Amino acid sequence: MAYASALTEIQQRELVQIVGEDGVIFDPAAMRVYASDASNIKGKIFAVARPTSTAQVQEFMRWADAERVAVHPRGRGTSLSGGCVPTVPGIVLSMLGMDKILEISPTDFVAEVEPGVNTAAFQAAVEKMGLMFPPDPASGKATSLGGNVCTCAGGMRAVKYGVTRDYVLGCEVVLPGGKLMKFGGRTQKDVIGLDLTRFIVGSEGTLGIVTKLILKLIPKPESSASVLVGYASLDDALRSMAKVFAAGILPAAVEFMNETVLEILVKTGACPWPDAVKSLLLFQIDGSLETIGLENARLARQLDDALWKLEGVGKTEEDKLWAYRRRVTSSSYVLGPDRIGGDMAVPRGKLLAAVRRFEEIAANNGKRLIGFGHAGDGNIHANLHYDASDPDDAKRTVKAHHELDDAVIAFGGSLSGEHGAGCLKDPGLQLGRDEHELMRRIRKLFDPGAILNPQKGY
Amino acid sequence: MAYASALTEIQQRELVQIVGEDGVIFDPAAMRVYASDASNIKGKIFAVARPTSTAQVQEFMRWADAERVAVHPRGRGTSLSGGCVPTVPGIVLSMLGMDKILEISPTDFVAEVEPGVNTAAFQAAVEKMGLMFPPDPASGKATSLGGNVCTCAGGMRAVKYGVTRDYVLGCEVVLPGGKLMKFGGRTQKDVIGLDLTRFIVGSEGTLGIVTKLILKLIPKPESSASVLVGYASLDDALRSMAKVFAAGILPAAVEFMNETVLEILVKTGACPWPDAVKSLLLFQIDGSLETIGLENARLARQLDDALWKLEGVGKTEEDKLWAYRRRVTSSSYVLGPDRIGGDMAVPRGKLLAAVRRFEEIAANNGKRLIGFGHAGDGNIHANLHYDASDPDDAKRTVKAHHELDDAVIAFGGSLSGEHGAGCLKDPGLQLGRDEHELMRRIRKLFDPGAILNPQKGY
Repeated sequence: MAYASALTEIQQRELVQIVGEDGVIFDPAAMRVYASDASNIKGKIFAVARPTSTAQVQEFMRWADAERVAVHPRGRGTSLSGGCVPTVPGIVLSMLGMDKILEISPTDFVAEVEPGVNTAAFQAAVEKMGLMFPPDPASGKATSLGGNVCTCAGGMRAVKYGVTRDYVLGCEVVLPGGKLMKFGGRTQKDVIGLDLTRFIVGSEGTLGIVTKLILKLIPKPESSASVLVGYASLDDALRSMAKVFAAGILPAAVEFMNETVLEILVKTGACPWPDAVKSLLLFQIDGSLETIGLENARLARQLDDALWKLEGVGKTEEDKLWAYRRRVTSSSYVLGPDRIGGDMAVPRGKLLAAVRRFEEIAANNGKRLIGFGHAGDGNIHANLHYDASDPDDAKRTVKAHHELDDAVIAFGGSLSGEHGAGCLKDPGLQLGRDEHELMRRIRKLFDPGAILNPQKGY
Repeated sequence: MAYASALTEIQQRELVQIVGEDGVIFDPAAMRVYASDASNIKGKIFAVARPTSTAQVQEFMRWADAERVAVHPRGRGTSLSGGCVPTVPGIVLSMLGMDKILEISPTDFVAEVEPGVNTAAFQAAVEKMGLMFPPDPASGKATSLGGNVCTCAGGMRAVKYGVTRDYVLGCEVVLPGGKLMKFGGRTQKDVIGLDLTRFIVGSEGTLGIVTKLILKLIPKPESSASVLVGYASLDDALRSMAKVFAAGILPAAVEFMNETVLEILVKTGACPWPDAVKSLLLFQIDGSLETIGLENARLARQLDDALWKLEGVGKTEEDKLWAYRRRVTSSSYVLGPDRIGGDMAVPRGKLLAAVRRFEEIAANNGKRLIGFGHAGDGNIHANLHYDASDPDDAKRTVKAHHELDDAVIAFGGSLSGEHGAGCLKDPGLQLGRDEHELMRRIRKLFDPGAILNPQKGY
């Protein structure tokens, strides 16, 4: 069944009736930003709809299904895997009109929010009440909670606290056709019926439109401390990390940076480590004010074979250390104005071998591998920079990127640890044929007309 | 479509061919134990099949589907909600023939196991290697990991570490018809395709037969400490617990016991607390050897309004405190030789109101409520004891039990936090009609012939 290839005047009027004059964009200039996301891939759209209530979303989904209009749900458009790209001409459904924090309950340790709420703003709001929402994507200042749920965002603290999935207790979802489904609730545990709440998490907007989230909160730790640790090589760094885990320490975060990352950091700004340092680890631990110093000393004892160390206790001091980690992405552009990114995951023990293999693949194609990420999860951000105006460079970069994906599979890994497949990854590389087919049959049960996020996900 | 109501001689021979002479039981006396579980409800079976390999499970499921034989998968049969009861005459598929720990990897922080592995034995094996598998059902000495996965077992440490779902990275599942599905893998993160790994967890054996599990492990904390705390009432106890959370402390476990529980404990054994103590909390914290004492003192400061306290640091000392908690179930029989149990969950802040309402319902029916459980999760074990040989007592108990379920729903809770619906809970009380229907349609996609666990779950 083909999709509507444009909106008739009647359909345009119907859309305005559903979401109101203020809730719709037809102006091509204003629509441009919605035709792409952080992947920079562009698609074609007829309109942007921006509902402000669940009832509007229901009415919109009933209408879109009946009119066979492809729907591309969108939060803040930060997907690096083309998750918000209009792969098929259609309507972008912006959820930013639903951005209210409905409730934060310090007795139930639960929050109820609309999907358009900004992640960092939400974290700040709960922290003010002595609570914590652990999922912490590096891009949290820009992302929405609905977007985090679509990809099961991970982030820095996943090694200790888990990922977005682990903090969603319930959700409301509008299916194609307009039916509102309520899954889960405000209890910390619930094993009645199939767990559709967590099934929605990570489904990349292919099953329905999330209109409300019930999130789990925990008590906020009193204090935290970080340490930036320098080594002669990534080999030394990861050997050191293994000692930390073996000592029974579960840090809140462990980030790594390979030799190329240090090179670009040194090239683009002041760096406090000596020249002999070629690879970094960045640890964070958290706990009570009284014990954080002792825990920090305990961690430091496991890091005695490091070349160099810089400690920071408390948010201000820690932020100075984390600034180096946060500078990686912007500094990377010294290697080329364009980028193909990866966020592969491998079994934790394979991290060193995987990064070394990735570097080899990059070198074989005349490229450098920017390798960093969540070492504690085996989650590697493997970026390749190039100049799109140089066809040979572009060709070699794309070739290397495909070879990286093949290598991940050979390591028993996943093509994506937290960004999702979007329209950029080929899930067929990773999923078995029968498993893939089963997923598609379930998708069809939710969306028989296939109007939701066509050609994305799986 | 009706189910096979008996096995023909040909079918019996086919079954023997599939699982071997040693893998099948036809003897009525030997079958008796398999016709029920810890719920004491009895069903009718034709045979017990006990496969020893995935290939045998595949062949069995192909055969059972073709022959229209109802299949009742079973681990160690400890379900309190009738999850293993043969609700429709059929074959019990015992997974205890597949009980090998295939691998424990201290570098990947992953274990691969067959479903029949005993939970406590597995925990001991990983702890010997300095690792920890946090899900910790109170019945872990008796249960199998496959059974834990079927109900998404929670247990004591869920408040800090989460439930079984949070520690399953991948699984292999044989569907009715015999197809083997491989979901997930050995990576800590993976967002390619729908998350069928966690969808299997808690599905109560209605979607397929788990033949292999890939489990996530964490570093084992060096030390732990517990404190048993006495109050004049449950009201005082839960006010005190709220202070602990508000101080930013996330204990590994927080158990509560209501006034009736203390009465039966005092009646059935020696108890160290003074008469004025009518309600107990039991906390556990864990961490490093160096800081556990400080953390314990910090916790103790929040408990300054308690009437009485007994501390234990280290496993031996702690076990003495936990022995009181473990004695609850057996002591309960002083209130009657038969039991109807509940494991309802309510939003954490509603725990006190819910227990008080449950007690009122019990009293209105001339019963006493044994109320204890996982206070940190709002997960209440609400047991009613009675004498089945007294029809009036039995009638009042069943009536009270139904009223408890209605009350849980009124509190926005779940009928089951960790035992599952089995064949004892009515999921229709809790699930919306459309949501329930959607679950059933998904179930049909996995099991078109409805041979798996009919009349159980949802």
